[in-house]
Amino acid sequence: MGEATPLDEFGIIRHFFAGRISSLGPEVVLGQGDDCALFSVPPGYHACISTDTFTAGVHFPADLDPADIAWRAMAANLSDLAAMGAVPLGCVLALTLDKGQVNEGWLDQFSSGLGEAVDRWGIPLMGGNLSRGPLSLTFTVIGKVAEGQALLRTGAAVDDDIWVSGWPGEAAAGLQRLQLGQQQPAHLLQRYTRPQPRLVLGQKLIGLASSALDISDGLLADLAHLFESADLGALVALDDLPLSGQVLDTLGKEEATRLLLTGGDDYELCFTAPAANRMAIAALSAELQLPLTRIGTVTPGAGIWLQAVGSEPVPATQIYSKTGYQHIE
Amino acid sequence: MGEATPLDEFGIIRHFFAGRISSLGPEVVLGQGDDCALFSVPPGYHACISTDTFTAGVHFPADLDPADIAWRAMAANLSDLAAMGAVPLGCVLALTLDKGQVNEGWLDQFSSGLGEAVDRWGIPLMGGNLSRGPLSLTFTVIGKVAEGQALLRTGAAVDDDIWVSGWPGEAAAGLQRLQLGQQQPAHLLQRYTRPQPRLVLGQKLIGLASSALDISDGLLADLAHLFESADLGALVALDDLPLSGQVLDTLGKEEATRLLLTGGDDYELCFTAPAANRMAIAALSAELQLPLTRIGTVTPGAGIWLQAVGSEPVPATQIYSKTGYQHIE
Repeated sequence: MGEATPLDEFGIIRHFFAGRISSLGPEVVLGQGDDCALFSVPPGYHACISTDTFTAGVHFPADLDPADIAWRAMAANLSDLAAMGAVPLGCVLALTLDKGQVNEGWLDQFSSGLGEAVDRWGIPLMGGNLSRGPLSLTFTVIGKVAEGQALLRTGAAVDDDIWVSGWPGEAAAGLQRLQLGQQQPAHLLQRYTRPQPRLVLGQKLIGLASSALDISDGLLADLAHLFESADLGALVALDDLPLSGQVLDTLGKEEATRLLLTGGDDYELCFTAPAANRMAIAALSAELQLPLTRIGTVTPGAGIWLQAVGSEPVPATQIYSKTGYQHIE
Repeated sequence: MGEATPLDEFGIIRHFFAGRISSLGPEVVLGQGDDCALFSVPPGYHACISTDTFTAGVHFPADLDPADIAWRAMAANLSDLAAMGAVPLGCVLALTLDKGQVNEGWLDQFSSGLGEAVDRWGIPLMGGNLSRGPLSLTFTVIGKVAEGQALLRTGAAVDDDIWVSGWPGEAAAGLQRLQLGQQQPAHLLQRYTRPQPRLVLGQKLIGLASSALDISDGLLADLAHLFESADLGALVALDDLPLSGQVLDTLGKEEATRLLLTGGDDYELCFTAPAANRMAIAALSAELQLPLTRIGTVTPGAGIWLQAVGSEPVPATQIYSKTGYQHIE
């Protein structure tokens, strides 16, 4: 850059955010620059809100490409909107920058990744906050969903099918490769660095799914959340799991299965639906060109059981003692 | 506590947040526990949104009473709603907890302070996120304001009066005492630990004020934001500043003046209004039992000038080279 950029709070906002990142959208009445941003919610709609923090060294490697840091954090938050069937409306970002790490190159790349995500997912950056401290990003995303139509975690019934989108486990495999300093397979790395929130899928599942959530902590851990308030459980067919060909090739079947069931960071959707909707869900899979795989059935009584063809069901906790990522240990 | 509490993510949420802190309100359709919370915005209203991060050691002393940590961060965020004239609707909290610092006592006190703030200001905790890392809190607050009525930073006109609420400088004086290990004067300490967002004032300034913002970084620094996009400035009458009696008694006039102009953390409102509204603003001050002090006038041309009776105006930057708190240095 020709001119020296003053890297104080307002200098950073001016040079790397304001003007560079879309701040306005159809429902955003007032964007960045005031005490608050203002937005409207169309008549007949509710607003959805979700917030998530990503801290360097905890939720991502500190030396990850800054563009990927921005994209991943945004995608993870959008995944919560996807799980409700919502359409993105806008977001705010509270960004904490480490004094030692902040330089123009880093900020430039970060801002590019953020701008890419904002444009790709149509979610204007309505405002934010910049402060000093250990590197972390907290996005709060706002979406809209027709009143009474949101996909909830509650709603599953006994005998409903359990479905999952995509190839869970690929992101965890990608992270493993990244941590080993490997650059291949590129597809797996990209599944970790550039997750794709299943927004359209979520929107199209309204009327089809009886409950839904996104997989951020691992399929088994998140699946348990679908049933924790009701006295329900799941029987998962091990032979029906959508094992990723690339993960199989790279790590073998046992590890591929483990990562599918317990790896995090995929941001795929897991949902339940009555058996009567199988054809419609298959048609949706074809329309979106996204695998939707029926992996099991909702059962009465708590607990998640895994079953291989020709074997008795086994409690999931017996095979995988730690079923998902715990943010606090 | 009788039974051991598992201090994992879900254990903490169950024991210290869910059920203990109000999650629902008139406009909150779905509170904590799903991928997103859901809220409605009444017809004829816009939603306001603001986010702010408070990191231990940067924005507050790490050993501050956990109840005060929660209250202050919430109050600071609500102050942004106050500055728009908005009514609180709900909030979400992304809380990052330091493994070494987290224990049941700390969480219990934090949760109490948070619950107090939620009840006092009528802003349900719709949801949130808990993660591990250096202690920090990011609230995102949502408010509502009638369409077209929000108080903006833009809108000041030449010859408008400049007003400020309360006694700015008291919070900075309180922080100084706290850092010296002093417990007196209690009023000043409390102005730092328990700031009062001026929500009712903001709501009542709609129709009276031409522009408004809250003072978080220091009066001079924030005042500059009112005029930065227009070619306007301010002439501030040094003899009209509302010097706090307690700060005067404790620190003397020079330091009291410096803290009033450059100290942060007060979360008072600064606003401009046409001279025709002086009587109405005085009546509002009496009604709210809150000092509203006319400290200067909007001038043509950029720059903030300070003037003592009988002296020539002097550029503020000539007296106070650093006019406010910089979050990034």
